[in-house]
Amino acid sequence: MTQSFRGTAHILLMMIEPDFKDGLVPVIVQAADTCEVLMFAHMDREAFELTRSTGLAHYYSRSRQRLWKKGESSGHLQHVREMRIDCDRDCLLLIVDQDVAACHEGYRSCFYRTIDGEVVGRKAFEPGDVYRAK
Amino acid sequence: MTQSFRGTAHILLMMIEPDFKDGLVPVIVQAADTCEVLMFAHMDREAFELTRSTGLAHYYSRSRQRLWKKGESSGHLQHVREMRIDCDRDCLLLIVDQDVAACHEGYRSCFYRTIDGEVVGRKAFEPGDVYRAK
Repeated sequence: MTQSFRGTAHILLMMIEPDFKDGLVPVIVQAADTCEVLMFAHMDREAFELTRSTGLAHYYSRSRQRLWKKGESSGHLQHVREMRIDCDRDCLLLIVDQDVAACHEGYRSCFYRTIDGEVVGRKAFEPGDVYRAK
Repeated sequence: MTQSFRGTAHILLMMIEPDFKDGLVPVIVQAADTCEVLMFAHMDREAFELTRSTGLAHYYSRSRQRLWKKGESSGHLQHVREMRIDCDRDCLLLIVDQDVAACHEGYRSCFYRTIDGEVVGRKAFEPGDVYRAK
């Protein structure tokens, strides 16, 4: 593995301001341990600031039109190890320690299928067991 | 490295249709060799179909409002090893062999900085050397 992630301790430099187009910035989420791309979501400023202040990933759900703490239903939190920003400041990359799994369908990653429908991802839980009791 | 990528030879199953919202689908690009997240872009249907048929990544540039073959200026092509789709069919993940570097600023990845401005990415070329002559 040639990619390395650092911990939360780092030199404090000037924060780079994300470009919230129409109030939102897209966010890519990657697992610190396996390097898997886990999911894709969006943050508004409130979600961004809550993520920064708590160390737990928060997003803005466009379908539900509200703030969404990742894992609020499933308990599968994302602990942020590092936040990166791209050259154009219009996309974020979160490197996280993922509790159990990221996908609501029970897979470790939301990208568990190839475009040709072959399942290549790993199932981590049964959605019925996790969401039924809530 | 616990994540594994397969080659282009695979069982032919039913293609999963991406959800092109407003004609576009977001695309995350990851390096097959290092697992680094290299960049974030969008595809329209034409770019998607050209990527599928040529094996080279094509995108739709929202700023230039036109089809864009990755590497058309720099020569730094992306050879697609695998295309994945997420659970909601509204985001693609390309796993690629990246020639030289993905970022127009000369870094291997567009995500070469933390949100606090620390450069953590690797520089692969000087933009002036590559783009000046074009």
